[in-house]
Amino acid sequence: MPRFFSGDEPQNGVFTITGEDSRHIGRSLRMAVGEEITVCRSGIDYRCRLDKISDGAVSASIISSEKSKEPSIELTLFQAMPKLDKLEFIVQKSVELGAKRIVPVMTKRCISRPEKEQFEKKRERLQKISLEAAKQSGRGIIPEVSGMISFEKCLEEIKSLDVGLMCYENSGERLKADILPKNGTVGLLIGSEGGFEPFEAEAAKNAGVRLIWLGDRILRCETAPIAAEAIIMNLTDNI
Amino acid sequence: MPRFFSGDEPQNGVFTITGEDSRHIGRSLRMAVGEEITVCRSGIDYRCRLDKISDGAVSASIISSEKSKEPSIELTLFQAMPKLDKLEFIVQKSVELGAKRIVPVMTKRCISRPEKEQFEKKRERLQKISLEAAKQSGRGIIPEVSGMISFEKCLEEIKSLDVGLMCYENSGERLKADILPKNGTVGLLIGSEGGFEPFEAEAAKNAGVRLIWLGDRILRCETAPIAAEAIIMNLTDNI
Repeated sequence: MPRFFSGDEPQNGVFTITGEDSRHIGRSLRMAVGEEITVCRSGIDYRCRLDKISDGAVSASIISSEKSKEPSIELTLFQAMPKLDKLEFIVQKSVELGAKRIVPVMTKRCISRPEKEQFEKKRERLQKISLEAAKQSGRGIIPEVSGMISFEKCLEEIKSLDVGLMCYENSGERLKADILPKNGTVGLLIGSEGGFEPFEAEAAKNAGVRLIWLGDRILRCETAPIAAEAIIMNLTDNI
Repeated sequence: MPRFFSGDEPQNGVFTITGEDSRHIGRSLRMAVGEEITVCRSGIDYRCRLDKISDGAVSASIISSEKSKEPSIELTLFQAMPKLDKLEFIVQKSVELGAKRIVPVMTKRCISRPEKEQFEKKRERLQKISLEAAKQSGRGIIPEVSGMISFEKCLEEIKSLDVGLMCYENSGERLKADILPKNGTVGLLIGSEGGFEPFEAEAAKNAGVRLIWLGDRILRCETAPIAAEAIIMNLTDNI
């Protein structure tokens, strides 16, 4: 069923959908009055019937509702800044796999080094990719793509989570269920094309982050987060 | 270390590398005599020192050798034919994650429906993507991209493996370690953009294939194989 996120509360059991989404319902999807959509708001999925359709506004009345199916863990991906097309890919796949938030991090070996303001312009596009992936994959929230932060700030943030993990090719333990919470917050730190400097791995370790080994094969920087996220979701019973 | 696959046996402890690879060593990588490369042949990694470099031929003498690090399981991905760019992506990522073979399958809901001969022309390009990914990720073999087969043929092939798995959104059990062998052969069957018809899931089940649930989020057809492969490699201690 087509899925939309609503920023506004329903009024008397009716959602009013405007803007791009209303045009999408009428024009692209060519939906008719009486057909059903899902409207998602604040972690609730509302099954709705279309009452009125125009380019400017669509009315949809609530038939039933249930809690959106979100993963039991809150997973934040801290991704060392890769080239932009790879970051777009990582955002899309991370949203599909259930990440709650994606945070680009500037590390020593990043080849792509946009200024903060420069990246802010790109963030809008990344946030739109997250929205589209959230609709398509059936998420209950639109995962946030945060502003770029420094490696130091990243360690500070990851420290405040229940479990912090860093994929590091030169060492580390295997991803196993017993190092993950079944509920709670997990931070996953992944390198850019050039990987991490040894001093960064050391600093992460000192901050209580566990170094993780992702197998003998060298994964590209866009493959590693997808693989690790899938495994984490499996080991916490979410996949 | 740069990695190359050799079709020829070493002669008196020396590999002769010709063609594109020799040009790559001399021109693109600008390597010099005395520098080291890895030459992989028949599941053995040979650490070699460059003795002579020219565009036409490079001589590399063996310093030491060890068994290539290949996964303990032999994983075949049976992928219902997606659009070609997605298949290219799936081949690249599957090779990185340790698949042994990728087999495109024609199913009822495939939108991309090339003729067998038409696909054969594209197979050369896919095989090259496999080779490049094998070099880059440090594989001990070049995974084969097979010719397109029918769904019936796929079930026949998957039946001959130790474990057959089909990701099916409407039902199934979770991917867990106890349904996977630590060594042995595993077949993984993934749908195209449109998923599987119920009768296909039924036929697979009757052929002894286990239906697998990949979580509440709907994964795109190119995300599902990557996620499942990563999880399978984790649960069999290969990641």
